[in-house]
Amino acid sequence: MKIAIVGAGALGLYYGAMLQRAGNDVRFLLRRDYQAIRKDGLSVTSPNGDFHLQAVQCALDPAELGPVDLVLVGLKTFANHRLIELVAPLMQDDTCVLTLQNGLGNEELLAKTFGAERVLGGIAFLCSNRGEPGTVHHMGQGRIRLGELSGGFSERATALARMFNQAQVPCEAVDDLRRARWEKLVWNIPFNGLSALTGKNVTELLRHEPSRREIIAIMGEVIAAGNAQDLNTPIEAEIFIEKMISATETMDGYRPSMMIDRLEGHPLELEAIYGVPLTRATACGVEMVRVRMLHALLELGERN
Amino acid sequence: MKIAIVGAGALGLYYGAMLQRAGNDVRFLLRRDYQAIRKDGLSVTSPNGDFHLQAVQCALDPAELGPVDLVLVGLKTFANHRLIELVAPLMQDDTCVLTLQNGLGNEELLAKTFGAERVLGGIAFLCSNRGEPGTVHHMGQGRIRLGELSGGFSERATALARMFNQAQVPCEAVDDLRRARWEKLVWNIPFNGLSALTGKNVTELLRHEPSRREIIAIMGEVIAAGNAQDLNTPIEAEIFIEKMISATETMDGYRPSMMIDRLEGHPLELEAIYGVPLTRATACGVEMVRVRMLHALLELGERN
Repeated sequence: MKIAIVGAGALGLYYGAMLQRAGNDVRFLLRRDYQAIRKDGLSVTSPNGDFHLQAVQCALDPAELGPVDLVLVGLKTFANHRLIELVAPLMQDDTCVLTLQNGLGNEELLAKTFGAERVLGGIAFLCSNRGEPGTVHHMGQGRIRLGELSGGFSERATALARMFNQAQVPCEAVDDLRRARWEKLVWNIPFNGLSALTGKNVTELLRHEPSRREIIAIMGEVIAAGNAQDLNTPIEAEIFIEKMISATETMDGYRPSMMIDRLEGHPLELEAIYGVPLTRATACGVEMVRVRMLHALLELGERN
Repeated sequence: MKIAIVGAGALGLYYGAMLQRAGNDVRFLLRRDYQAIRKDGLSVTSPNGDFHLQAVQCALDPAELGPVDLVLVGLKTFANHRLIELVAPLMQDDTCVLTLQNGLGNEELLAKTFGAERVLGGIAFLCSNRGEPGTVHHMGQGRIRLGELSGGFSERATALARMFNQAQVPCEAVDDLRRARWEKLVWNIPFNGLSALTGKNVTELLRHEPSRREIIAIMGEVIAAGNAQDLNTPIEAEIFIEKMISATETMDGYRPSMMIDRLEGHPLELEAIYGVPLTRATACGVEMVRVRMLHALLELGERN
């Protein structure tokens, strides 16, 4: 299977490297790391063992990489205005696209051009950062949950999950991608936004009792909005919040990607993580009061 | 009338200087500006005309200033743990205390030690900053609304208002101090907190449509909480919000005191402006959702 990685940041580089190491034909669309990877290959540091790939297929222009069987999208969503032009040259009749991007609206954007039947989405639970050009640091986790945009199980999704598992990436196919996306938002919306806004990591946020209460209240708003989206089965608020908080308590000092983006002066993924969810909540008659305020303040910070 | 100024920051220095210029016997309790004012006096720059007072009565120890007829308190509320010890040496049988501090709870703190019958409160609408030691910059406004802690009009309050007016400080006595305090909170709660949290001035906040909507929503929460406090007459939400927004639109680039405090690394007046109002709102069955979130995030920022 020929696989193209579009959006080769910390996420794209890591999963691409894992897939290539397992014997897949992986091609990276690169920008920042192009010269370094051409010259010295791609290095992954990881608690599971470091590894290095010397020969890496890569290009600056997607036309040089395609067509492929699978396009794996890891592009930051603030660059989504370029998504279609980057993916289009990689497509042939039976190519499918799996977006592992954050938030809502990415599958729909791809489906509008390429057709819903080509599109899968996945939620990545990955702690990784870019290092020097040509190096990605995997700090922990890496699990993926993927499914069809149109819902339900498919052979194709099951095959992709198998491919990831064979590459040492824990992966499961889910029958309700929408539910999986909203579940991820239950974490992303409070922790990404509050850490970016306040400059505090997840441990500092949880240790401060009033902030912890706000995080829990925000999670409650997101679950209420998600459950209004006609999911197969509703998210059970109390149990799920408890699970998210407990999981985060093990992530000592973790700095969410949006916090790092703000500290480094990059744009934030506000539309996918806040804008689209707020619109969909309102459309279902649910008002996420705290989330809307958080979104406003984050967006304000984007005005220089 | 002998007047002592306790808390001689931008507010205390300005009002004290205006009162002394009008012929009152004013004594300043100083700390930062003591040496400068002893040596060179006190200067006020103002759009209404600069002036300089060469001979200024001042001390570092309140025992050297008292007793007086009126104590005017301008102390930042985060220093309220020292308020009683600073005021006590200034008191004699008929001394009254007028606190011009921000937020709620200051009159009650004074009343607990000195008796409610001694205590008046005032709301100052003043744009002023400290300059070099011995200099205060008056940028605009300066109006005071004052009243009895126990409510109602009094001869004493009317006499104080007259004294301020004679000193070119527009001042009116009000019969419902509580309402006046809540009205001021309608401005202070959104603009002080949001500017401190985001580093944006009032003009930048209002120009960003989603933030403007949050400001209006926060004002609505504060008015609902105020109106639950058994005011003489309720605050009319729509009219009052419109008035606050319009007034703020004329304050081009104004940086609220809390924003400056945060930028300069000083503590914030969170308890008086957020903590006490939230407690009083909850006690009356009103939940200020956005205000509580704002308070949590501001308080989080106070943890190094």
